Amino acid sequence: MDKNRIVLAHGGGGVLTKELVVEIIIPAIGGKVLVLPDAAMVPGADNVFFTTDSFVVKPLFFKGGDIGSLSVHGTVNDLAVSGAEPIAISLSLIIEEGLEIDTLRQIVKSAGRAARECGVNIVTGDTKVVAKGEADELFITTAGIGIANRDNGRKSVEMTGIKVGDKVLINGSIAEHGIAVMSQRKGIDFDTTIRSDSASVWPFVKALLDGEIDIHAMRDPTRGGVAASLVELSGDWKVTTEIYESYIPIRSEVSAACEMLGLDPLSVANEGKLLLYVDKKDADRALRILRETQGGKSAAIIGEVLPPKEVQVFLKTSFGGERVVEMPYGEELPRIC
Amino acid sequence: MDKNRIVLAHGGGGVLTKELVVEIIIPAIGGKVLVLPDAAMVPGADNVFFTTDSFVVKPLFFKGGDIGSLSVHGTVNDLAVSGAEPIAISLSLIIEEGLEIDTLRQIVKSAGRAARECGVNIVTGDTKVVAKGEADELFITTAGIGIANRDNGRKSVEMTGIKVGDKVLINGSIAEHGIAVMSQRKGIDFDTTIRSDSASVWPFVKALLDGEIDIHAMRDPTRGGVAASLVELSGDWKVTTEIYESYIPIRSEVSAACEMLGLDPLSVANEGKLLLYVDKKDADRALRILRETQGGKSAAIIGEVLPPKEVQVFLKTSFGGERVVEMPYGEELPRIC
Repeated sequence: MDKNRIVLAHGGGGVLTKELVVEIIIPAIGGKVLVLPDAAMVPGADNVFFTTDSFVVKPLFFKGGDIGSLSVHGTVNDLAVSGAEPIAISLSLIIEEGLEIDTLRQIVKSAGRAARECGVNIVTGDTKVVAKGEADELFITTAGIGIANRDNGRKSVEMTGIKVGDKVLINGSIAEHGIAVMSQRKGIDFDTTIRSDSASVWPFVKALLDGEIDIHAMRDPTRGGVAASLVELSGDWKVTTEIYESYIPIRSEVSAACEMLGLDPLSVANEGKLLLYVDKKDADRALRILRETQGGKSAAIIGEVLPPKEVQVFLKTSFGGERVVEMPYGEELPRIC
Repeated sequence: MDKNRIVLAHGGGGVLTKELVVEIIIPAIGGKVLVLPDAAMVPGADNVFFTTDSFVVKPLFFKGGDIGSLSVHGTVNDLAVSGAEPIAISLSLIIEEGLEIDTLRQIVKSAGRAARECGVNIVTGDTKVVAKGEADELFITTAGIGIANRDNGRKSVEMTGIKVGDKVLINGSIAEHGIAVMSQRKGIDFDTTIRSDSASVWPFVKALLDGEIDIHAMRDPTRGGVAASLVELSGDWKVTTEIYESYIPIRSEVSAACEMLGLDPLSVANEGKLLLYVDKKDADRALRILRETQGGKSAAIIGEVLPPKEVQVFLKTSFGGERVVEMPYGEELPRIC
């Protein structure tokens, strides 16, 4: 590996992505930027949150979605996990010459439909075209604006930080987006019914906020999967998270597909999942709220927070063993989102 | 030309771009979207403006700038011409595997520097990597948030629409960005000192707002050049604009390069130009303000608004003739921004 050049793994959402961002991009931007979180507060307008994501998923269409709907859900979810209600989205297209206009139309329609379902407006956009061979069909970049604590009556998310004793919850079964996209790729042709979970998590966040659940941290575990989010959050708050394999919701086809592909489902991307740490006093009530929200039937409490140990995250396996959960290193599944 | 596929000209900022946006993209998005302006007001937060642009300029570095600084100026300028003070920027990178990390660092540094010079913060971002051959080195998408009428004391831009008698002004000499990029391309090697005009136009807008100039319309004439902006604005407001060739500021090297390349300088992209229609009573004062602002020494009044005629824009040539200025059809200069 040439250390001086970008490799695919730099885009995988794991250790190398973090290194690239923390060691190269943020210092290069300079000035006051210390972190580039999923969504940032806008200086001078503290209740306005702002986020962006580029989407390079391949193929453009997959079971349960396409690059259009995915690009809306991804940005909506970055806002949602900041506790901000998604309000407005931008949609910027980089198109490879030769793309069928019908394909473009279908994808933009899907983005528009997803936006309406999420209650956001696509308010601005851009269109660039590059020559054949200079891009791969279509890349979409969305940005989004959300407003925190919009209704005066609703308690805003506090996200005061993870504490020992906190419970870890997830709103449904994992690894479906990554496996759905992989199963659509050329060369991998296991016939499954696995669909991407691509969806907005805002309804879950809203229900939790309305229920005044004491949320200590929230993430949408996309690239790098649940593993990356758990390791990052545990590291940020200097705690150890213990999760229980038998409690983690996963469909049997997804589990089988992961085994076939040699993938750890904890490292596979999701796009409609909400991972949250809540105060233990609120955990059962939070679980009820998640399960009562549409799409949340298989929500579960999957772990809890222990005092800091040598490792940040470990998994109690179904067989009673223990294994360390690590930040995925690089790109196990390129162009998954 | 296959009517069912995207061609390079769809990205040129001319007639075909407009057709693609108006006939395909906006109807596909559906819902209430009627136009996708350069910068949109955010529903429920009327003083917040939001914009996005993707940058695919080739080569990545050119005299007077690079894709990093360009991506900041482009988004800052879309906000500025909406009368909104640029506040926050997002920076999303799509990187081709194999890009040198030093190249990336240099570009992100340049973006950071440009942001500081413009008084905006880069607050959020994303990084995606695609395989060798799936993109061309680096594409950047920026989005931006601006606040209109931020200081209570400052009159916000009205942009009440163009009226007969209005004067047309520009803050400096045209066509420099497009020619600077072209002169850097392989195969074209005329040795010139032409530098891109890439810069923020917000200082000009701010000075005009502070001076309470009665601005009727504003644009930053990027893709499609001054011609595209004039034709579009004249069409939108159902007037005819007459411009005077001898008044249009253009450097002689730029003029010569355009001639050599067979390009109309009116159709060549700018990235630091402000084109504005102001009430005739304020025209001379606006010109003074532009000229007193840094970089505005060659600002000029270049035309005026006539009652609607058959054509939307015509040019009085230096030789006393007249010619119709048309919306450029497609892509004369691919990947110019």
